[in-house]
Amino acid sequence: MPHLHIEYSPNLERYVAVQDVCRAAWEVMKESELFPLAGIRVRAFAADHCIVADDHPDNDFVAMTLSVGAGREKAALKAAGERLFSAVQDALAAPLATTHFALSLEIREIDAALGWKDTPIHSRLSQH
Amino acid sequence: MPHLHIEYSPNLERYVAVQDVCRAAWEVMKESELFPLAGIRVRAFAADHCIVADDHPDNDFVAMTLSVGAGREKAALKAAGERLFSAVQDALAAPLATTHFALSLEIREIDAALGWKDTPIHSRLSQH
Amino acid sequence: MPHLHIEYSPNLERYVAVQDVCRAAWEVMKESELFPLAGIRVRAFAADHCIVADDHPDNDFVAMTLSVGAGREKAALKAAGERLFSAVQDALAAPLATTHFALSLEIREIDAALGWKDTPIHSRLSQH
Repeated sequence: MPHLHIEYSPNLERYVAVQDVCRAAWEVMKESELFPLAGIRVRAFAADHCIVADDHPDNDFVAMTLSVGAGREKAALKAAGERLFSAVQDALAAPLATTHFALSLEIREIDAALGWKDTPIHSRLSQH
Repeated sequence: MPHLHIEYSPNLERYVAVQDVCRAAWEVMKESELFPLAGIRVRAFAADHCIVADDHPDNDFVAMTLSVGAGREKAALKAAGERLFSAVQDALAAPLATTHFALSLEIREIDAALGWKDTPIHSRLSQH
Repeated sequence: MPHLHIEYSPNLERYVAVQDVCRAAWEVMKESELFPLAGIRVRAFAADHCIVADDHPDNDFVAMTLSVGAGREKAALKAAGERLFSAVQDALAAPLATTHFALSLEIREIDAALGWKDTPIHSRLSQH
């Protein structure tokens, strides 16, 4: 943890560099004290099919889910979510200036008792 | 919200128009008083790899997750889920008539305190 | 249920057969008394974009989510999760021996009152 899962409409790539959106999110997560660097995974998936809102052909969306281990303070999570959302809003300023775009973020808390990880990346990063 | 996330086996597209399945779901969500039109996102993702049940090569699946903001009455959610599931069953009547198909739906409730949205689509739709 | 959803970085397919990872997971799920065979769906999705940990270009990840109906004993779930994670660790021994890989599993419990299924596969399998 933390894992940021992003879903988006396939047409979005015609005018937005989705890798840059991932990077904007990653920069915020990297700066946060809440999230160990070795635990960060940002990944984005283009939908094969989608229908957004009233199905206007210009409609596009980005929907993000941040999964974090349970046990953090809700206020800290809320602050982290706000910074993350704000950074992604900046990266998506162009589509957000139209009336055909929808951006969302939710945070999900994961029960650590039912979680497992094996992260050899961690040993490399902790040497620095 | 509401977001409908659909996953399916890649072979399904050989004999089912997945966009029509999305549309059948969208029609029900659009009619429901529970869900604001501007908040609807239906999206479907073909798996890159999958194994279904006993791994018979004819097996296919569609798995749906509907995410809604917490706080709605459970009975209303249950009724909405039933209408949605029934409409998708109709759209998938052909594969459901075989013994090689599996359809599922779950509803997840999202904590609004850990959710953010920026939906310029909303301003366009509320003008009508 | 149970549904195993796997996400992975696209570069992973250069040196790992993801279908074999799915099969290793499926074998464990098939043996478990906790999970009916007809309910198993293992599916894997390659990300279109991702950034893992410190964004080293060799970094790859596999992130798994197992969704099961609520109501099972936590100890039994924990044991099933451990067997599943261990089998996938074996299947991914090569990348886990580097310092550029990250593997994770979480188990999510699903509220059966807000779940629906239509599984004609079940009737075929229960005849045996």
